[in-house]
Amino acid sequence: MASFRPVGFVRCDRPRLEETPIQALSNPVEEAVLEVLPEYSAALAGLSGFDYAWLLTHLHLHDGELGRAPTDEELRPVPFLLAGSGERQGLFATRYPVRPNPIGLILVRILDVGERSVRFAGVDVVDGTPVLDVKPWVRRFDVPPGETRHGWYDRDDQR
Amino acid sequence: MASFRPVGFVRCDRPRLEETPIQALSNPVEEAVLEVLPEYSAALAGLSGFDYAWLLTHLHLHDGELGRAPTDEELRPVPFLLAGSGERQGLFATRYPVRPNPIGLILVRILDVGERSVRFAGVDVVDGTPVLDVKPWVRRFDVPPGETRHGWYDRDDQR
Repeated sequence: MASFRPVGFVRCDRPRLEETPIQALSNPVEEAVLEVLPEYSAALAGLSGFDYAWLLTHLHLHDGELGRAPTDEELRPVPFLLAGSGERQGLFATRYPVRPNPIGLILVRILDVGERSVRFAGVDVVDGTPVLDVKPWVRRFDVPPGETRHGWYDRDDQR
Repeated sequence: MASFRPVGFVRCDRPRLEETPIQALSNPVEEAVLEVLPEYSAALAGLSGFDYAWLLTHLHLHDGELGRAPTDEELRPVPFLLAGSGERQGLFATRYPVRPNPIGLILVRILDVGERSVRFAGVDVVDGTPVLDVKPWVRRFDVPPGETRHGWYDRDDQR
């Protein structure tokens, strides 16, 4: 068991979880700010040279929702994109937010890096979401070569 | 402060941290296995339809290395790729493993999904590394449109 603590918090205009988009790239225009805690501000040096970054977020509103002995329904949720059919998928084959470790992975476009803040576009989290880490998006690490299959995400029956 | 627990462990032929590659995509051939804890095996359903997945790992050998009041040197490490010049970069502009929250993000190629295990190619972790989450790699979520800048990673002076 490991403990983690925020390095900052997202400030955005999404006060309610129910109104947040499904993935950041599907909401590429809306802007938000990552406010970094003062003790980590020196870690932002050089980040403005990158167009995109990963935010690892603590999905704090889903913390503890998945039980210690998870049920089969918890392990095979209905993804938001399959709500129409109600079809279940294995949790590790989805980006569904109720997970054994509620860590979100969002790709954001960096607009401006200040002394203690990062303004970015692409919001799929609720206001106040704790951020556990910021990592630069690097094409040669984050994009595999060639064509790729994406399981049920490649189907046409998504809402 | 949030607590996290493993959903499984990586088994591979890298017993020593000093001998692990820098990023999984730079070591695309070597194979390893993620052994998932029995209570999470149902979450693997459907994962075999994906070519790539993210593993969020607990960089357990670096746990606690970054102090609570981090020094400027800790916040601006010398990335492995700049060891030649010794130039420092802000930690959030690097994928350096000594981080406020030691969470690794590795992209692996899925070779085979068993009842309780995932065989994959692309290893940049040490044997026994705890895995906190598995998320499918989905091009439309994980690759931004257009050309992208990658800060100091775009330079030619890397070792």
